[in-house]
Amino acid sequence: MPTQANRCYAILGTGALGGFYGARLQQAGLGVHFLLRSDYAQVREHGLRVESPQGNFRLPQVRAYKDIQQMPACDVVVVALKTTQNHLLAQLLPPVLKPEGVVLVLQNGLGVEARVVEIVGPQRVMGGLCFVCANKVAPGHICHLDHGTITLGAYGPGYQPQGITQAMAQIATDFERAGIPIQLAEDLHLARWQKLVWNIPFNGLSVVLNAQTDDLIANPQTRNLAEALMAEVVTAAQCCGVRLDQALITKMLATTAKMKPYRTSMKLDFDAHRPLEIEAILGTPLQQGQAAGANLPLITMLYQQLEFLNTQNQISLKS
Amino acid sequence: MPTQANRCYAILGTGALGGFYGARLQQAGLGVHFLLRSDYAQVREHGLRVESPQGNFRLPQVRAYKDIQQMPACDVVVVALKTTQNHLLAQLLPPVLKPEGVVLVLQNGLGVEARVVEIVGPQRVMGGLCFVCANKVAPGHICHLDHGTITLGAYGPGYQPQGITQAMAQIATDFERAGIPIQLAEDLHLARWQKLVWNIPFNGLSVVLNAQTDDLIANPQTRNLAEALMAEVVTAAQCCGVRLDQALITKMLATTAKMKPYRTSMKLDFDAHRPLEIEAILGTPLQQGQAAGANLPLITMLYQQLEFLNTQNQISLKS
Repeated sequence: MPTQANRCYAILGTGALGGFYGARLQQAGLGVHFLLRSDYAQVREHGLRVESPQGNFRLPQVRAYKDIQQMPACDVVVVALKTTQNHLLAQLLPPVLKPEGVVLVLQNGLGVEARVVEIVGPQRVMGGLCFVCANKVAPGHICHLDHGTITLGAYGPGYQPQGITQAMAQIATDFERAGIPIQLAEDLHLARWQKLVWNIPFNGLSVVLNAQTDDLIANPQTRNLAEALMAEVVTAAQCCGVRLDQALITKMLATTAKMKPYRTSMKLDFDAHRPLEIEAILGTPLQQGQAAGANLPLITMLYQQLEFLNTQNQISLKS
Repeated sequence: MPTQANRCYAILGTGALGGFYGARLQQAGLGVHFLLRSDYAQVREHGLRVESPQGNFRLPQVRAYKDIQQMPACDVVVVALKTTQNHLLAQLLPPVLKPEGVVLVLQNGLGVEARVVEIVGPQRVMGGLCFVCANKVAPGHICHLDHGTITLGAYGPGYQPQGITQAMAQIATDFERAGIPIQLAEDLHLARWQKLVWNIPFNGLSVVLNAQTDDLIANPQTRNLAEALMAEVVTAAQCCGVRLDQALITKMLATTAKMKPYRTSMKLDFDAHRPLEIEAILGTPLQQGQAAGANLPLITMLYQQLEFLNTQNQISLKS
C-alpha cells in the first residue's frame, strides 16, 4: 500500500456504519469515495452530517457514487453493506480494488469474509468488529450515540490466526488519525466468536421480545435466558476449537447492565422492515457449532423464531 | 346430587367459556346462576347473547349476581375464572357449594384443581378440558367459532385415576342435553398432559411471535419448533409417569394444519392486556417435569420469554 498521505478508501454501503467511519476518515484528510444507493442524490448535493458526543460535524462535499464503475480503484475497500447484500460483492469488489489493495469487512457475524475471499483471494482480507451505537436518522444524516471502537484482524484460510500484519497496522494508523479507537486482534476467529457471545442473545431477543437491552437485562427471566444463550455460544466456540472462557459471560452481562438503553442493529433492521442478518449472526455459528458436535437447543429455537418473524415482517412489507 | 330436573349450576366467571356453556345449560332448561364482575349491569338487564355455527340465540333473562353471598348454594359449581384469579376461590366457593355439591374446574393447565381441593376436599372435584374456540366480543355477548367438546375427569389425590364416577355421568347427562359433547376420561392427569402437548407450544408461540395457529404451522421453522416443544412435553409427562406417546405429536400437528386460523386463549389474553396463564400452562408442567428429572430447555426458554412479555404487557397497561 502507498504511504498514508496517498491512501484512499472506498466505502461500500453508506449507512450508519459506513457513513460514520467514512466521514471520520475524510474529516481526517484521507481520500474517501462513498458508494450509495437510495441516499445518492441527497449526499451528492448536501454531503454528510454526523451528530456525535465527540462533536457534531458536516462534510458539505463528499465523493459520492451510485455506479461502482465510476469509482476509482482504492487501496482499502470497506465493506459496510448488510450481510444480506453480500451476493452483490462479486460485482462490486473487482472494479474498486487496486491490485495491491485490501478489503476490510466491517460486518457482524461469522464467515462473512468467505464470499470476499472467493473474489479477491485469502491474502488481502481483513475483518473488523464495530462496537458502536450509531443510527442513520435521515439520508446522509448519521447519529452516533456511543462507543466506536473497531477490533481489527487479518483473515487467514479457515480463520487461522495471522497475528498483526503490516496492512492491519497501516489501517489502524489511518483510523486512529480519524479519532477511531482500534484494537488489533491476532486471532480474528476468536474476536468474531467473542462478539457473538453478546450478539446472539441480545440481537435475537431484542427482535423476538420487542425490547431494548436495558429491559432484557433488568428482567430476571430474560437475564437468565441471555446468560443461558451465552453459555451455548461459548460451548459452540469451544467445540469449534476457539478458546473462549465462560468467565466472559459474567463480564458481558455486567457491561450490558451499565449500557445506555439500546436498540440492537437487528432490532433497527426489523423495525425498518429490512431483512435480518440471521444467517451471519445465528445461522452460521449454529451450523458450525452443531457440525462440531455441540448441543445448541436454545440458539436453534431463537434462530427458528427469528426466521419466522423475518418472513412475516417481509410479507407485511409487501402487502 | 338431586335428580336432573332439580340440579342447579353456579358459573363462576362469565367470560367466553362460562358464558357459552352456562347459556347452553340454561337454554336446555337447567337452573343456572351466573357470577359476573365487569359485565354485571349489562347482563342483569339484557341477558346473554350467543352467536354460534350451531345457531344464534339470546337469553333475555339470566340469574346474574355480582355478590357471591347473594347466590344460592348449587349442586355443581363451574369454575370458569382465569387461573390467574384462583386466589379468589377461598372466598367464592364455600357460600355457593351445597354440602353434597361438586366443583367442575373448567380451566387449562396442570394442577389447577389443587386450590379447589384445599377448600372443598379431594372427593368432590372434577376437571374439565374445553376444546372450544369462543370469544367474548362485548359484555354478555359471546361468539362461538368452532368445536366445543369438554373432556371430563374426576380428580383424585395426586391425580390418581378415578375411572368414571357417578357425578361425572350425571354432569355429562346435563351437558349433553344442552348440546355440549362430553368425553369421559378415566384418567384426568393423562387428559391434562395430553392437552398440554398442544397448549404449551401454540399458546406460548402465538404470544411470543404475535401469530395465529395457521401461520405457525405453515412456516417450516415454527412447525419444527412446535414439534420439538411437543416432544419435550411428552418427555416431561413420561418422566411424571404419564403414558403419553410421541405418536400423539404427528396427529396433533395434522389436526392443527386443518384448523381454521385461530388466536389462542393466551394470545387473546395478551391482546386484551390480561395477565397470562403462564403458571398453569407452562410453569407447573415445567416444575413437575424437571423435578422428575426431565431436561426441558425449550419449554424453559418459552416460559422465560412469556414471563418477560407478560410483565412488559402489564407495565404498558398501567402507563
